[in-house]
Amino acid sequence: MAILINDSTLRDGQHAVKHQLTAAQLRDYATAVDQTGVSIVEVGHGNGLGASSYQVGRAALSDDEMLAIVREALVNTRMGVFMLPGWGTIADLSKALAHGTDVVRIGTHCTEATLAERHVGWLRERGAQAHAVLMMSHMATPMELATQAEQLVGYGAQAVGIMDSAGSLLPQDVTARITAMRMQVDVPLIFHGHNNLGMAVANSVAAAQAGATIIDGCARGFGAGAGNTQLEVLVPVLERLAFKTGIDLYRFLDAAELAARELMVTPPMIDSLGIVSGLAGVFSGFKNPVINHAGTAGVDPRDVFFELGKRQVVAGQEDLIVEVVAELKRVAL
Amino acid sequence: MAILINDSTLRDGQHAVKHQLTAAQLRDYATAVDQTGVSIVEVGHGNGLGASSYQVGRAALSDDEMLAIVREALVNTRMGVFMLPGWGTIADLSKALAHGTDVVRIGTHCTEATLAERHVGWLRERGAQAHAVLMMSHMATPMELATQAEQLVGYGAQAVGIMDSAGSLLPQDVTARITAMRMQVDVPLIFHGHNNLGMAVANSVAAAQAGATIIDGCARGFGAGAGNTQLEVLVPVLERLAFKTGIDLYRFLDAAELAARELMVTPPMIDSLGIVSGLAGVFSGFKNPVINHAGTAGVDPRDVFFELGKRQVVAGQEDLIVEVVAELKRVAL
Repeated sequence: MAILINDSTLRDGQHAVKHQLTAAQLRDYATAVDQTGVSIVEVGHGNGLGASSYQVGRAALSDDEMLAIVREALVNTRMGVFMLPGWGTIADLSKALAHGTDVVRIGTHCTEATLAERHVGWLRERGAQAHAVLMMSHMATPMELATQAEQLVGYGAQAVGIMDSAGSLLPQDVTARITAMRMQVDVPLIFHGHNNLGMAVANSVAAAQAGATIIDGCARGFGAGAGNTQLEVLVPVLERLAFKTGIDLYRFLDAAELAARELMVTPPMIDSLGIVSGLAGVFSGFKNPVINHAGTAGVDPRDVFFELGKRQVVAGQEDLIVEVVAELKRVAL
Repeated sequence: MAILINDSTLRDGQHAVKHQLTAAQLRDYATAVDQTGVSIVEVGHGNGLGASSYQVGRAALSDDEMLAIVREALVNTRMGVFMLPGWGTIADLSKALAHGTDVVRIGTHCTEATLAERHVGWLRERGAQAHAVLMMSHMATPMELATQAEQLVGYGAQAVGIMDSAGSLLPQDVTARITAMRMQVDVPLIFHGHNNLGMAVANSVAAAQAGATIIDGCARGFGAGAGNTQLEVLVPVLERLAFKTGIDLYRFLDAAELAARELMVTPPMIDSLGIVSGLAGVFSGFKNPVINHAGTAGVDPRDVFFELGKRQVVAGQEDLIVEVVAELKRVAL
């Protein structure tokens, strides 16, 4: 079975450096990956097109600059972008297509597929390649995800999939989700893992074994906190299991070494809060505000994560942190 | 199902710091772990009792010093030691028992169980708890391992198991091996993983699901190269899958933070040679000599690892590196 590798080092990886990758870093990594057989290189702010802002962090470069640099560097590998409707707009998509983007991926929360309808439709009308993914996919059952995936395909998505945004899934959970989606839709399936529970590679393998054919990851697992799936580990493991990635191992190991040397301040690591956010099923972007508010109130940040998990918080609901901290403090008194 | 956690941070973890853990580091970590519910803390030179030497590296402390310090720190958790017959002797075992060691583990290459006979027998005659493990277990088939395990039990081993010393196994390989052993022997089964292919946690889960009840690991995955199984990740994952470890998660997360802060120079990371040694099935202790010899000769160290893998080298056969490098150079000319 052929697996298409979607390299998100220059997009989701950006979270690890607060979206500060420079022109030289983008160019050098994209140039290195272009020689490896990787199918798609995603580029942009960590939260996608149009997301650079005071609240989630301003990127070092504009979307225009990033797209122009990577476009020039890629000859063999397709260029991909990611967009969250609301964070980015049709105007951003238009700009991305003008820069020669090959694949556009639209992301929504796992129960909010409808948010992707207009953007996927707009892309298909223009003949663009449109994929769609359901984020925080541990929060929905396999059947719910299958139904949402079917909706996305109805809008015109040419590939659909799930993101384990909180790094909360175990291989059996991935198998169940991908299997349910495979039975419901007939387009290629995408899986995007995070390593909070040390399962990013195993989950990606489980996804491929269940029928996913587009798998995400980053060189050295680049990404916030526990990081993304480490691509140069995943690729040879998939090959050993008789999947075909079309990737030249040595060249990709070289690209990963370049990423480790030139892109990363520190390699990703699974620390206590990374584990707890994975267990709690809370997006790891909550980490810094949780530490700050919990620290001020003298509350254990791990308790805050587990309580936020019970409340099924999603990105954008950071205000709840203050409320949870106050309640935990009240209970402790 | 109850799982007994064997914490090897102060033994196998030592490889990451060339066996230089100090008295304060041993004491602080053992004291922290003693409060967590961990069953066994292993202590010693990375290669076990009696192994401190010029060739594999001298430890900062003698076996006597290490055992005395950790013995004093442990009230709830049992103290374990590891020994490779040939590297250590009966005299070393005798010393370990005199220090109040609770569990002695004897290791042999996966096809050389006979080497453990005398030492396991000696321990049992003295009423000591004797376990035995088969190292580099990717080099033997499940049936071969089951036969070797049966021999070990015949010698008196009260628990037997396998080490994935090269970090080369995938979950399905672990399942096959543990399952075959479980059908052949009736004592608790041990699994010890390494993370070269990003599978240490997944492999440990597979081992538990196949019936292993003693699982090794280290805080933060401490250990040479790609490191050991990260214990504070594994424990909550096992608990989520309804295994009972008896471990207090927060206390163990605290112990792991202490290890990260006080024991480690850098956290373990899966780099290119870690991946290649895992794929090739070569013990990662070959890394530095391979880099040195390959570098001098202008040969790709990755080719050296794959060629060593084909020749099924084991620790102690480092001389073959020179031969392989010379051959690869000849072929290239």
